[in-house]
Amino acid sequence: MATSATHLLKDELDIVIPTIRNLDFLEMWRPFFEPYHLIIVQDGDPSKIIKVPDGFDYELYNRNDINKILGPKASCISFKDSACRCFGYMVSKKKYIFTIDDDCFVAKDPSGKEINALAQHIKNLLCPSTPNFFNTLYDPFREGADFVRGYPFSLREGVPTAVSHGLWMNIPDYDAPTQLVKPLERNTRYVDAVMTIPKGTLFPMCGMNLAFDRDLIGPAMYFGLMGDGQPIGRYDDMWAGWCIKVICDHMGLGVKTGLPYIWHSKASNPFVNLKKEYHGIFWQEEIIPFFQAATLSKDCTSIQKCYIELSKQVKEKLGKIDPYFVKLSDAMVTWIEAWDELNPAKDSGKK
Amino acid sequence: MATSATHLLKDELDIVIPTIRNLDFLEMWRPFFEPYHLIIVQDGDPSKIIKVPDGFDYELYNRNDINKILGPKASCISFKDSACRCFGYMVSKKKYIFTIDDDCFVAKDPSGKEINALAQHIKNLLCPSTPNFFNTLYDPFREGADFVRGYPFSLREGVPTAVSHGLWMNIPDYDAPTQLVKPLERNTRYVDAVMTIPKGTLFPMCGMNLAFDRDLIGPAMYFGLMGDGQPIGRYDDMWAGWCIKVICDHMGLGVKTGLPYIWHSKASNPFVNLKKEYHGIFWQEEIIPFFQAATLSKDCTSIQKCYIELSKQVKEKLGKIDPYFVKLSDAMVTWIEAWDELNPAKDSGKK
Repeated sequence: MATSATHLLKDELDIVIPTIRNLDFLEMWRPFFEPYHLIIVQDGDPSKIIKVPDGFDYELYNRNDINKILGPKASCISFKDSACRCFGYMVSKKKYIFTIDDDCFVAKDPSGKEINALAQHIKNLLCPSTPNFFNTLYDPFREGADFVRGYPFSLREGVPTAVSHGLWMNIPDYDAPTQLVKPLERNTRYVDAVMTIPKGTLFPMCGMNLAFDRDLIGPAMYFGLMGDGQPIGRYDDMWAGWCIKVICDHMGLGVKTGLPYIWHSKASNPFVNLKKEYHGIFWQEEIIPFFQAATLSKDCTSIQKCYIELSKQVKEKLGKIDPYFVKLSDAMVTWIEAWDELNPAKDSGKK
Repeated sequence: MATSATHLLKDELDIVIPTIRNLDFLEMWRPFFEPYHLIIVQDGDPSKIIKVPDGFDYELYNRNDINKILGPKASCISFKDSACRCFGYMVSKKKYIFTIDDDCFVAKDPSGKEINALAQHIKNLLCPSTPNFFNTLYDPFREGADFVRGYPFSLREGVPTAVSHGLWMNIPDYDAPTQLVKPLERNTRYVDAVMTIPKGTLFPMCGMNLAFDRDLIGPAMYFGLMGDGQPIGRYDDMWAGWCIKVICDHMGLGVKTGLPYIWHSKASNPFVNLKKEYHGIFWQEEIIPFFQAATLSKDCTSIQKCYIELSKQVKEKLGKIDPYFVKLSDAMVTWIEAWDELNPAKDSGKK
């Protein structure tokens, strides 16, 4: 039972890991990850050798590989930033993706049991979401729970779940100013819930512990232009989160957050982070109202079409803030072109 | 510390209890409720004597009292339905209301400690809500938590909290069909979280364990026409929940749900409930889209004005479903008139 449950979908899911170091952290995940295929996206110096513990099945891409595979379109993949992970989403041929940072370890639930984060993500993805009405007892599909009195019956089928956003024990995902103000704060609260983010509500999506249905939302999971040569970092997952939420709302797909927790081992340097986030802290004050107001036309019947339309709106509305957004908008288009090039069969049917 | 913390706001909060029986359930709540003033709304036969345990400070209103105080306007207060509780909100002179059903007992947290539900509600009401953007670590104002990376700084002050919706261990608040299908289901999951219901999202508000700021939202906390002489029951709190949510969204006020839990001791009869809910199960399929689409004009600058405008929309849009909604719309207006009559000074300043 344990084996079949924990290794669910093992031929339909890739684990994507962006890294600059040896992947010793995988040792702790071995019982949960070993049967799955890994896609490792090596950031930084491509001549460096990344060691992967024995027994794991993986493919590894460094910058040279990315440039070779995408040619000029490689410009849409960030360098020296974990945003590069989205290259892994693109080269995967599986239906599901789980992505995790290499400073994330296995967390324990309040009973002391090690949490199989991947199994919980799969559970989240395989059961429906309920974005159209709030259920006060959280996930109504969970054992021991249901829809409460007053929940419209016509909405109880829910909608397909596209994204499962997991959380973090120990080091919370704070921005640089909060890190600076609260250097010792640790997340010790285990909230035993999974919930759907309601339709029309944006959320800060963190890429540390994230799973999604590539067939449903993959082409929108672009982590933007960050890091080397860009005026911003640490907004890669946020950018993707804003985009996917607007598109999921338009397409009638669900986004869940809550369980599973992972153990986030170490806080990144808040001074370095402040430098990366600096522009984003200002820009997000305009970007978020933009995404809150964004609507997509009826013609947007595929994720690709939605994403292209969103890229146009980004250029038009956010281009005024900074030329960076014009560049980002172009990169969004390049991303879709590259995606379709690498994923021809599947996407041609959808367009 | 325990005393001052648990008896917070004791001169500014009334506990409203609708009942048809002796209030023995208060014995268990004595350590938490005794310092507070109770408003007991006796439903059903007014000649019946309701016993209240010694030591509690209370006022009690039966149907004769309601008729005497409100005169012809008493028609807006339901009879033979716990919807009558809203009369207590109207006669209170305090800033805060906590309302609880008489089959609700003290629950325990996972450590086995008895939960002071009232203290948690007060905590919820006294700290801001965050309806404009989702925080993945739940209540950012709670000790050990904060706003996560990507949360716009301009939204971190939050908005005043108008409503605190608590949950239930043991018997979940299910509708009759779910009760019939899952007679043995019990809620055993303690989810250690408080969250803001996002702006634009409706939720099923249960009146069993509910607190609110009467100054901020009181006049909208009308529990409608239910029970005796009406075609519907068990939608009193739902109705209030839809109305207050639309109005809170318009007025920039927050609604929280989650902690505290109470122990809900016994399931009501599902067959009786089905009879009461029957029409509501159909009607809610049209009512909820109505409330989801409802917007209030800029002139609606007080809760009373919002409520009157909403009553007009109810008549116009829901009156088509059934003549009941025309009657309900009129009752909404009567309720506001009665509220203003009993609460003249406070409201004159607000209009």
